[in-house]
Amino acid sequence: MLTDIQICRKATLQHIETIADQAGLEKSEVTSHGPHKAKVSLDSLERLQENKDGKLILLTAITPTPLGEGKTVTTIGLAQGLSRLNQSVMACIRQPSMGPVFGVKGGAAGGGYSQVAPMEELNLHLTGDIHAVTAAHNLAAAAIDARIFHEQKSGYQDFEARTGLRALRIDSNNILWRRVMDHNDRALRMVTIGKNSEGKTVNGFKREEGFDISAASELMAILALARDLQDLRKRIGNIVLAYNLDGEAVTAEDLQVAGAMTVTMKDAIEPTMMQTLEGVPTLIHSGPFANIAHGNSSIIADRLALKLADYTVTEGGFGSDMGFEKACNIKSNVSGKKPDCAVIVATLRGLKANSGLYDLRPGQPLPDSLFNDDDKALQAGFENLKWHIRNVTRYGVPAVVAINRFPQDSEQELQQLTNMIQQLDYPVSVAVSEAHAKGGEGAVALAEKVIQACNTPLSFSPLYQLAQPLEEKLMAVAEVGYGAKQVILSDIARNQLENFKQHGFDHLAVCMAKTPLSISTDASIKGAPNDFDVYIRELKLCAGAGFIYALCGNVMTMPGLPEKPAFMNLDIDEKGHVIGLS
Amino acid sequence: MLTDIQICRKATLQHIETIADQAGLEKSEVTSHGPHKAKVSLDSLERLQENKDGKLILLTAITPTPLGEGKTVTTIGLAQGLSRLNQSVMACIRQPSMGPVFGVKGGAAGGGYSQVAPMEELNLHLTGDIHAVTAAHNLAAAAIDARIFHEQKSGYQDFEARTGLRALRIDSNNILWRRVMDHNDRALRMVTIGKNSEGKTVNGFKREEGFDISAASELMAILALARDLQDLRKRIGNIVLAYNLDGEAVTAEDLQVAGAMTVTMKDAIEPTMMQTLEGVPTLIHSGPFANIAHGNSSIIADRLALKLADYTVTEGGFGSDMGFEKACNIKSNVSGKKPDCAVIVATLRGLKANSGLYDLRPGQPLPDSLFNDDDKALQAGFENLKWHIRNVTRYGVPAVVAINRFPQDSEQELQQLTNMIQQLDYPVSVAVSEAHAKGGEGAVALAEKVIQACNTPLSFSPLYQLAQPLEEKLMAVAEVGYGAKQVILSDIARNQLENFKQHGFDHLAVCMAKTPLSISTDASIKGAPNDFDVYIRELKLCAGAGFIYALCGNVMTMPGLPEKPAFMNLDIDEKGHVIGLS
Repeated sequence: MLTDIQICRKATLQHIETIADQAGLEKSEVTSHGPHKAKVSLDSLERLQENKDGKLILLTAITPTPLGEGKTVTTIGLAQGLSRLNQSVMACIRQPSMGPVFGVKGGAAGGGYSQVAPMEELNLHLTGDIHAVTAAHNLAAAAIDARIFHEQKSGYQDFEARTGLRALRIDSNNILWRRVMDHNDRALRMVTIGKNSEGKTVNGFKREEGFDISAASELMAILALARDLQDLRKRIGNIVLAYNLDGEAVTAEDLQVAGAMTVTMKDAIEPTMMQTLEGVPTLIHSGPFANIAHGNSSIIADRLALKLADYTVTEGGFGSDMGFEKACNIKSNVSGKKPDCAVIVATLRGLKANSGLYDLRPGQPLPDSLFNDDDKALQAGFENLKWHIRNVTRYGVPAVVAINRFPQDSEQELQQLTNMIQQLDYPVSVAVSEAHAKGGEGAVALAEKVIQACNTPLSFSPLYQLAQPLEEKLMAVAEVGYGAKQVILSDIARNQLENFKQHGFDHLAVCMAKTPLSISTDASIKGAPNDFDVYIRELKLCAGAGFIYALCGNVMTMPGLPEKPAFMNLDIDEKGHVIGLS
Repeated sequence: MLTDIQICRKATLQHIETIADQAGLEKSEVTSHGPHKAKVSLDSLERLQENKDGKLILLTAITPTPLGEGKTVTTIGLAQGLSRLNQSVMACIRQPSMGPVFGVKGGAAGGGYSQVAPMEELNLHLTGDIHAVTAAHNLAAAAIDARIFHEQKSGYQDFEARTGLRALRIDSNNILWRRVMDHNDRALRMVTIGKNSEGKTVNGFKREEGFDISAASELMAILALARDLQDLRKRIGNIVLAYNLDGEAVTAEDLQVAGAMTVTMKDAIEPTMMQTLEGVPTLIHSGPFANIAHGNSSIIADRLALKLADYTVTEGGFGSDMGFEKACNIKSNVSGKKPDCAVIVATLRGLKANSGLYDLRPGQPLPDSLFNDDDKALQAGFENLKWHIRNVTRYGVPAVVAINRFPQDSEQELQQLTNMIQQLDYPVSVAVSEAHAKGGEGAVALAEKVIQACNTPLSFSPLYQLAQPLEEKLMAVAEVGYGAKQVILSDIARNQLENFKQHGFDHLAVCMAKTPLSISTDASIKGAPNDFDVYIRELKLCAGAGFIYALCGNVMTMPGLPEKPAFMNLDIDEKGHVIGLS
C-alpha cells in the first residue's frame, strides 16, 4: 500500500474556492491561502443565523494505545461515507500540534484514503493559528516579567510617577501564567528565568517558571470556546495572569496586554477550510489536546458547519473519558449544542492492548502479536469498550461503535467483536469501517448506522451543573464519570480550591488533565478499572476559558521527544517535496 | 494628519495577483494568501535566469536614535518616486519582528504615505516565515536535549543497542544552539533548563541556557543568505549545534534533524509579495536584525527583483556601520551582487541627537526640543553624517543623502544641511525627501539623484577577503570599518578563535553584534568618535550561515520590553479592526 503522503499527493483536489462555494459560502466570506486552504470569515455566521442547525456527530474511542485507534481516519472516512450517501456533510477537526508530528505520533490528518489534504500543510503550519496562540501567550508572559522588572527596579512610587501607570505589584511567587512552545520539549518543563551574572538585575528578577505545549495554553482553549472576535477579546481580558501582593487577581486587562493578544489572534479566530481526499469540506480550527486541555475543535467551526450542512462530523480527543466528557460538560455548556450521536472507534489491536495481557512499554513500538487472533485478550479488552459504550449512553447520547479495520485483522475476530457488541444490553449499533483502505466507500455502512442513530430521540444530561461547588464538579467527573472510588486532593489543590471560592471562581467548569492511556489516572491500569482513586495534585485557574484545570496523577503539560522521534524521517527530496511524513 | 493605520486603511489596493502580473510573474508562480499577500515560487528564478540584472539601491542611515530615522519610509518612498518617473522598480524589505512591534518602535512598514500595505498584516504574522524560523530553531533545541536525555539515562551502549542509532555523546557544557522566541523577553536571556523536582531526571538534565530573539537565529541568517531550497537544506545540515565529549562538532545533520528543520521552513523560502500604497510591488523576505545579525533582506528576494525590475530598492538596518557594512562584506560575497548606489537617510532631529548636546536616555521619549533650530547641535551632529558618507564611498559605492523631512523641520535648517553636504569633498549628492507626507511625489527629487548615482561607474571593494584569518577580518571591520584604535578580545573570545581555526572555520565571514546607537561599541558615544577600542566578549560559530558572530561591548541578543510598551496601545475596535498600530 502507498504511504499516506503518496496517496495524498496522487489525489486530484479541487480549488478550495470551489469547495467553499459548494458548501454554501459566499465568495466574500472566503480568503484563500493558496489553492487548498481558505480562512472563512465570521460574517458568514451572521448571514446564516436563520438556518436550522444540522446534526452533530461526535467521534470518540476506546482507551487508546499511544499510537491512537484511528479516530481521525474514521472521522474523515465517516464524513466521506455520508457524502457517498448524498448527504450534505462537513467535518470539523483540530489543527495538529507540531509536538506529536515531530514526536511519536506523526501527522494527524487521518490516513490512507481518509485524509484531509494536503496533509503536509495541515500537519505543519496550516494558516498559522497555533503560532498565533503561542505568540499571544508568550507576549503576556514577557509583559508580566517586564512589568515586575520596571516596577521593582526603582520602587512602585517612582514607577508610577515616571510612567503615569498604576503599579500592579505582581507577586512574583504567585504567577499563574507559564510560557508555551509548540514542541515536545521536556527540558523546558521546569526552568529558572530572570537569571543574571554577577549580582546584576539587567535580565530581571530570578524566578521559577515552566513551559507547556501550546495546545495546553488557556488561549488555545479560549480560541476553541469563543463565539466570535468580541467574545475572544472579552475572555482574554478576563484571564488571571497572577496575583498581586495583596492576593488580588491581576488580569490581562490590568496589564493592558489583552488588546494586543487579541490583535495577535485576529486571524486565528477564523476557521480554515480544507477538503478530504474525496472533496468533503473540512473546517480545521484550534488544537487543544484532550489529556491536558479540553480536547475538542472550536465552537465557531461547529456553529458554521451546523448551519451549512445537515451533518457535522467532529471528534473529541482520546477515549470517552477524555475529549467526549469535555465535549459534553464544557463545550456543550458554552455552545448550547449537544451531540446527536457518538461514534466510538475501536480496533481489535487496541482492545487486546487493553486486556492487560501484553507487555506494553511507553515509548516502545507495539508488539506485532497484537494482530494475532487472541480470544482471551479480546474478551478481556472488551470490558474497556463496554465501559465506553456505557459512558456515552449515560449522557443520553445514541452510540455507534466503529470497528476501524486494520489490514492484518482477521474476518473471524471482526465478526466476533461485532457479535459481542450486538449482544450488549445497551442502545448501541456497530459497523466495521474500512475508511483507511477504501475511503468513503469503506465507511458507508457506518454512515448508515450513524444516520439512524442521529434520528434517535435525545435526552442529554451532563455530569454536573455549573452552579454546583467546584469540589462536587470534580467528584462528578471522577466518581460518576470515571467510576473512581474517591477524589483525593493534595494540600496544594485543597488550598487552591479554597482560594478560587474566595475569589468568586466557584461557578467555573472543571477540565481534567490526566493520562489518556487509562480510564483511571494511572496509565498502567488497563481495561475497565473500578477500584481506584483520582489524585489531584494541583489546580489551575482558567478564568478566561471558563474552567478550572485539574492536574491528576503524574500527567505533564509538556510532552517529551522519544528516542527515535518522527522528525528523523522527515526531509525534502531533490524536487523539494516533503518526504517521510505520515 | 491621519495615523499610519488610517492612511493605510483608506488606500485602494489592487489585488496582489494583478500586482504580480504587472511585475512580470506568471500566474503559476504566485500563490496568493488573501487579496494582498502572495508567496512567489522560486521556479520564477529559473524562468528568468537569462534576464539582465537591474540596479541595486541600498538604503542606509546616519547613526539612528532608538526610534529610527525613517529608513523604511524612505525606501518605500524612493521606490514610489522611481515609479513616478516611469521606471520599473521593486522594493525588498525584511519582515518586521514582533519584538519591536510590541516594544519600543512599533511597526516597520514605513509610514505616512510611504507604506507597505496592509501594514497590520506586514507587522504581525505576514505569511508566517518568522514563526517557521522559530519553530525550526526550537525543534533542533528540543532534539539536542532529548538526545542527551535518552543517551545518558541508561548509558551510551544501552542507547545504541536499543535504538540502532550511534550515540552522539553531546557535551552538555558545550552546546552552541540556544532557543529563540520572537518577543522582547529579557527574563529569558539566561535560564536554567532541565530542572527536576526531588532528584528525579524525568525532565532531562539541568544545564544553563538562554533565549535569543528569533531575528538573531542562525536559521534567520540562513534564510536570508540561501540561494534556493536545496542550498537551505545543505546550510541547515552544516549548522554546528554542539561539540561532543571529544571536542568534535555535532551538526544538525548528525542529529538527523536537518531534514525536518528544512521541511518546517519550506514555505518560508518563498518571498512574500505585497504592494506599497502606490502599488509598487514589494518583496518581504527574512528578518535578521542589523545589530545582532546581518541585517539585510534575503538574497532570494533581491535576485528575483533584480531580474524583474530595472531598479531594486532595499535597505540594511541601522547606520552604515551596521547593515550596510554587512551587506557589503557578508551578503554581497554570497550573492555576487554589489550595490549600485547607497542612499544615506538623515534627519535634522537625528543629527542633532548625534551632537552629544542633548540629554537622551535609553527607553525615554526623545525631547521635543530636538526639532528646534539649533545650529550648534546641527554642526556637531553633522560629523556623524560625514562619517557615514565617507564610510559608504570608501566601499566604492556612489552615495546620495536623503534628508527625511519631518513636519516640524524648518526650511532654513533643511537648506543649511543641504548646503553643508554639497560643500563636502566627497562624491555625494543630496535631496530632501517628503515621502512620509507626500508619498512618491515627495521622493521624485531623490529618485532623480539616485538614477544619476546608479549610472556612476563602480569600483566596489569590501573590507576583507574571506581567505584572510578571522582575527584580521575582525580587525578590518573594527579598525578600518569603524575607525577603532584596536580590537580587544576577551580570553573567552581568544580561545574560541583558536578553536574555530582548529576546526577549519577560519575562512568564514565575520558578523559584528554591537549597539546601533554609536559607531563605536558604546551606545553613549555619539557623533563620529575616533578614540575607542572594540571589545569582543564572545564569538559564536554560524557554520551554516557562513560567518562568525562577534558579540561586542554589552550588546544583547534578546531585547527587553520598555516601561510603556507599544502593545498597550493595540486593540480591536467594535468592528474588529486593529487600532493603535503605527
